[in-house]
Amino acid sequence: MRLNKLDKIMEEEGIQCSVVLSGAAIFYLTGYDYITTDIGNAVALVYCDRVPTLIVPVLEKNRAEAKVGDKIEVLSYSYSLIGERVFKGGLIDAIVNKINPPKKVGIDMQNSSSSFYLSFKEKVGDYIDISKKLAMMRAIKEEEELELIKKAGNITTSAMRIGSEKIQNMGITEREVAGLIDMTMRNEGAEDYAFPSIVAFGENSAFPHHVPSDKTIRENDNAVVDIGARYRNYCFDSTRTFIKGNSEEVKKIYEIVLQAQLEAIDTIKEGVKASEVDLAARRVIEKAGFGKYFIHSTGHGVGIEVHEFPAVSPTSNDVLKENMVITVEPGIYLKGKFGVRIEDTVIVTKKKAIVLETVYKYL
Amino acid sequence: MRLNKLDKIMEEEGIQCSVVLSGAAIFYLTGYDYITTDIGNAVALVYCDRVPTLIVPVLEKNRAEAKVGDKIEVLSYSYSLIGERVFKGGLIDAIVNKINPPKKVGIDMQNSSSSFYLSFKEKVGDYIDISKKLAMMRAIKEEEELELIKKAGNITTSAMRIGSEKIQNMGITEREVAGLIDMTMRNEGAEDYAFPSIVAFGENSAFPHHVPSDKTIRENDNAVVDIGARYRNYCFDSTRTFIKGNSEEVKKIYEIVLQAQLEAIDTIKEGVKASEVDLAARRVIEKAGFGKYFIHSTGHGVGIEVHEFPAVSPTSNDVLKENMVITVEPGIYLKGKFGVRIEDTVIVTKKKAIVLETVYKYL
Repeated sequence: MRLNKLDKIMEEEGIQCSVVLSGAAIFYLTGYDYITTDIGNAVALVYCDRVPTLIVPVLEKNRAEAKVGDKIEVLSYSYSLIGERVFKGGLIDAIVNKINPPKKVGIDMQNSSSSFYLSFKEKVGDYIDISKKLAMMRAIKEEEELELIKKAGNITTSAMRIGSEKIQNMGITEREVAGLIDMTMRNEGAEDYAFPSIVAFGENSAFPHHVPSDKTIRENDNAVVDIGARYRNYCFDSTRTFIKGNSEEVKKIYEIVLQAQLEAIDTIKEGVKASEVDLAARRVIEKAGFGKYFIHSTGHGVGIEVHEFPAVSPTSNDVLKENMVITVEPGIYLKGKFGVRIEDTVIVTKKKAIVLETVYKYL
Repeated sequence: MRLNKLDKIMEEEGIQCSVVLSGAAIFYLTGYDYITTDIGNAVALVYCDRVPTLIVPVLEKNRAEAKVGDKIEVLSYSYSLIGERVFKGGLIDAIVNKINPPKKVGIDMQNSSSSFYLSFKEKVGDYIDISKKLAMMRAIKEEEELELIKKAGNITTSAMRIGSEKIQNMGITEREVAGLIDMTMRNEGAEDYAFPSIVAFGENSAFPHHVPSDKTIRENDNAVVDIGARYRNYCFDSTRTFIKGNSEEVKKIYEIVLQAQLEAIDTIKEGVKASEVDLAARRVIEKAGFGKYFIHSTGHGVGIEVHEFPAVSPTSNDVLKENMVITVEPGIYLKGKFGVRIEDTVIVTKKKAIVLETVYKYL
């Protein structure tokens, strides 16, 4: 349990109560893993005067208690997932009940739905938004967390190798490769996927977020494979671009993206601005004349969430610190033709980046 | 394109502009499928005076255009997924620009984050919340949608059969079964999973939302398998409880849950209240003395979202209509021992329910 980290934030902000809504922050602080994908808020951690209370839907009560033991009181409320949605029911009332009489309250705004917020504000009044501090709290990883991310990386690497082999099978579809990759991640120890696996052949790879289809691979097609395991709630994120056979056109672009990625990785160490990492990649691609085809940020933090603090983008204000974990994933996307992306998840150290993906990326 | 359905809502509400934020509603109305799992709003459909505009992150522009053709203008904005988050950047400005000069605006509140909402309100002022009408708009399925759900059901059924066979293998883990199920869904045509597959053996099955683990199956263990394919953006949701070998204790509970599920299905037809369906199941379980171990609703609508309108719960105000698609999934959960859940996805007709899952459920 890491509630002492929340103590620190609350001391800085001068607040007596915190309402944490992000599933990732709740897991980080308590060990209870309800990593929801619904926009409605279903779970809250209320922390007042150093007493934590976890409020969960009734169907999750036993599981929550099994996760947090007797260290944290678990309250439950009846809820319905649809229609009236969760935030209008007992969750808000249970939260308000815990922070009564009103005190100075910090709330995790960025992870609240607008309906939750409006009900909450009506009942609680003013608050301080602690979202950013909660997100930053998780950015520098502890040793134990780094080990879990490395393990998620090993699982992802095994699956990536399967992907690299399978795309050589003439007639295999994007969906079939994705299925084999997913099964491999499960078999190697993943309890879930960090995000839906992307497998994109040929012109489909010009869409960064392509959804695997029935498209079969052809000779000289490239294949972009962007996958990540979730292992004990820690994510990994890796992309490789393979070529079935040979394509000088793809290779030319590949070399530019690889150079961009390597130069970006080279800039990484404690104290460097995240925006400099982005710009190092962007400069190489711009210089080669493909700047307008690099249509996303260079990277992002990875941890309990696959996209988390810090942002590695041209406009990021974040500064890298030792034991942050970030991705470096430049790409070039040529509509109607193909796309190339190369992505590693790396650990920031005082001197350099430690690259965790071990699948070969040199042509 | 189904924008005429939005016209109808706007006429009823007397509004000139709609801002749709739910990925499911945007797909339904335009064919562009950005089914996000992030709470930050990344995509919007603005529809003013019958002119639709899709606003997407720049990395999605080409894919969005490929989906909607030249029927809808696609605008893009630069965005960063972390830190400043999407809603503080160009999305709000792009929306506001389209609805300028201010008119009477309807907004999809339930699918907006509080940060989005606050920025929006500051710039646009008052609005009408059209979330509920947008959710209800998708509840009655068209023929074409029913066909896609049936296909998702066939895929899920194939995977469920694999699950039923594999749990007979002594020593297999929950994770391995989940991996084989996921691969089967991909191979049979799913482009993704409707939700993370649940495979729970023995005492783990007492947690309705258990995450597959390294637990191996033992003789006389039960196995709860709750899975669903996503096929061309339509979901399915199915649960079976299997027994490896024989357990009179599990069988006794199974018969109660089955009876509850059958009686609930028997009540289903157009005009029946959703709450009556829930209560039919609940009565059987309560009568058998296990009421307090049935810790969730009986069901929910299924479509582009795996949980959507209507709610099938004791407090639901929704009334069933022909061609709604709902689940019926009572369960009994005995902490430290085991749980049983049986779930079908069914189509509501004028006279009865059509059950889509075909994996045998009688002991």
